[in-house]
Amino acid sequence: MTDHSRRSSSNKVGGELQRIPTPYVLFLGDAIDREAAKTAIGIAHWRPDNCVGQLRLPGCQVDLGLADLDVEGAIERGARTLVVGVANRGGEVSPGWIDTLVDAAEQGLHLAAGLHTRLSGFDVITSAALASGVGIHDVRIPPSGLPVGNGVRRSGKRLLTIGTDCSVGKMFTSLQLAREMEARGIPATFRATGQTGILIAGEGIPVDAVVGDFISGSVERLTPEAPEDHWDVVEGQGSLFHPSFAGVSLGLLHGSQPDAMVLCLVPGRPHMRGLPHVPSPDLGQCLSLNEEAARLTNPAARVVGLSANTYGMTPDDAERTLDELERELGLPAVDPVRTGVSRLIDALPK
Amino acid sequence: MTDHSRRSSSNKVGGELQRIPTPYVLFLGDAIDREAAKTAIGIAHWRPDNCVGQLRLPGCQVDLGLADLDVEGAIERGARTLVVGVANRGGEVSPGWIDTLVDAAEQGLHLAAGLHTRLSGFDVITSAALASGVGIHDVRIPPSGLPVGNGVRRSGKRLLTIGTDCSVGKMFTSLQLAREMEARGIPATFRATGQTGILIAGEGIPVDAVVGDFISGSVERLTPEAPEDHWDVVEGQGSLFHPSFAGVSLGLLHGSQPDAMVLCLVPGRPHMRGLPHVPSPDLGQCLSLNEEAARLTNPAARVVGLSANTYGMTPDDAERTLDELERELGLPAVDPVRTGVSRLIDALPK
Repeated sequence: MTDHSRRSSSNKVGGELQRIPTPYVLFLGDAIDREAAKTAIGIAHWRPDNCVGQLRLPGCQVDLGLADLDVEGAIERGARTLVVGVANRGGEVSPGWIDTLVDAAEQGLHLAAGLHTRLSGFDVITSAALASGVGIHDVRIPPSGLPVGNGVRRSGKRLLTIGTDCSVGKMFTSLQLAREMEARGIPATFRATGQTGILIAGEGIPVDAVVGDFISGSVERLTPEAPEDHWDVVEGQGSLFHPSFAGVSLGLLHGSQPDAMVLCLVPGRPHMRGLPHVPSPDLGQCLSLNEEAARLTNPAARVVGLSANTYGMTPDDAERTLDELERELGLPAVDPVRTGVSRLIDALPK
Repeated sequence: MTDHSRRSSSNKVGGELQRIPTPYVLFLGDAIDREAAKTAIGIAHWRPDNCVGQLRLPGCQVDLGLADLDVEGAIERGARTLVVGVANRGGEVSPGWIDTLVDAAEQGLHLAAGLHTRLSGFDVITSAALASGVGIHDVRIPPSGLPVGNGVRRSGKRLLTIGTDCSVGKMFTSLQLAREMEARGIPATFRATGQTGILIAGEGIPVDAVVGDFISGSVERLTPEAPEDHWDVVEGQGSLFHPSFAGVSLGLLHGSQPDAMVLCLVPGRPHMRGLPHVPSPDLGQCLSLNEEAARLTNPAARVVGLSANTYGMTPDDAERTLDELERELGLPAVDPVRTGVSRLIDALPK
């Protein structure tokens, strides 16, 4: 941190975000349940037009309802990238997948994955990719040459989803907001910050994998200057109240300079994910700390509404919960699945 | 961040912090001024007993007042590590240094540096080190196997220096506090988080070089469980109000679980270092935001005093400035150089 000016200038040479070529064939491997195929399910749900089909190995128990293809069939249908949409325990690349991945690369498909283990760590895969001139997109690796953040205001508008915790629907809410904006004719771009979001969007930066000094700078690069009426809808990560990841959340807040924030939560969750000794934060306190911190880089930053995941509640309970949240915070509260997100968009600053 | 539980467990295998063998010979290369030799000056000031002498090349304009030694002479005096205490423009390794570094490694000295460019990136240096079995300590590289933070309370006490900005005296204040505690018979350990601090302490973690998801976890490892009356004095980094680096500062705050914080500042600095468009924060707001954020992992966390760098002021102006700070914040205010830090230690919780 002592020589950020030097690092800043030496990092300005960095290139553009790499875009993953579409359309995709979704590789499900030998996935035994929908949890294992979560990434593929997310892509198929949010980008059906980008998916020509699914590629399943013997033993696969998941069906996305897409055409079953092999590598040749995928190429015939126009696929440009094979996306590994499955994660086994540990986020490793299963030995049983390698032949198919090598075959795909040899036949000219780009490869993409958000696994813990990198595809580019396998010599047989990199050799095949090099030989046929295709790319390997390990989306958990940040791009090189990220700048140090500078906090200079940029044109265009930005919305950031924030959370009480991890895994409270920030990606889902962001995608829904971007879709609804487009439907209303509001120019908007979903900006992905995690591996599943990046595979859905086809580009992005895995901010939780960025080195500390470059977190806010990486988000400045992810959400560049834009026309004044354009909204970047930025996928949030973690929570200012999560003792493991709050640093990432704060860098994301400062780098995105949000004009508007949407606070995502799971009503009734007693404690932070993975940390039974850390209770969920008070909602009002969560809202005000985020607003205070965000004003460092955007004095107009404010929370415009709440997005609650009421999965598993009866319709009555869900409605009552949303009503209570509205009264407690004085802001519109939606469940993106049950109610859609229109009321959040109505609440945006013009 | 979506699979922190997995990463957490897979990263528990990480080893201990690596300690740099002492004593040192301080390599000044061809440093043309004291600014270039800042790291060596810091080590000689804070750890004179660890320095057997200086090693200067032709053209060097800096003299630390230590014995001038060559590699053989340094080894005769018992040096175990050659520390590169000089930084040229850009933080590169100068071509003119290489022969001496290789010679030192061949003759059995470990090498240590906090440069932007890694010593281990030079084949001739790594070959020499491998052949003679010495280590290369590039202290800007974090140790591997860092855990994800968990926020579980640890025994022992911790003090963290926080700041309005970068470069406001956090390292200096921390070292002075640890020294004064030791002089009073209070068990204390300086915990280094930046390159110069690490070379002074002989160990530490460069937290600004740690990947976002592991920032707080790296500080949990740096400041482990300790006897109840022991103080870790943790070197702070950046500021919650610095739009480039606040994520690092927040992770450091959460990971260190400070019982006490000392707020460091340079009175009269108009704006954040390197960012003329970002004014320095209001002191009261800086204090309260740090306390609020710190309470997530230590409900008793509070700021116990201020450390102001009044360098360049007349004695009268400095005294008046410290008085004004005391009145404004209602806390003891010291300049570690002019007044020492005793009053801060008097203010610590028992």
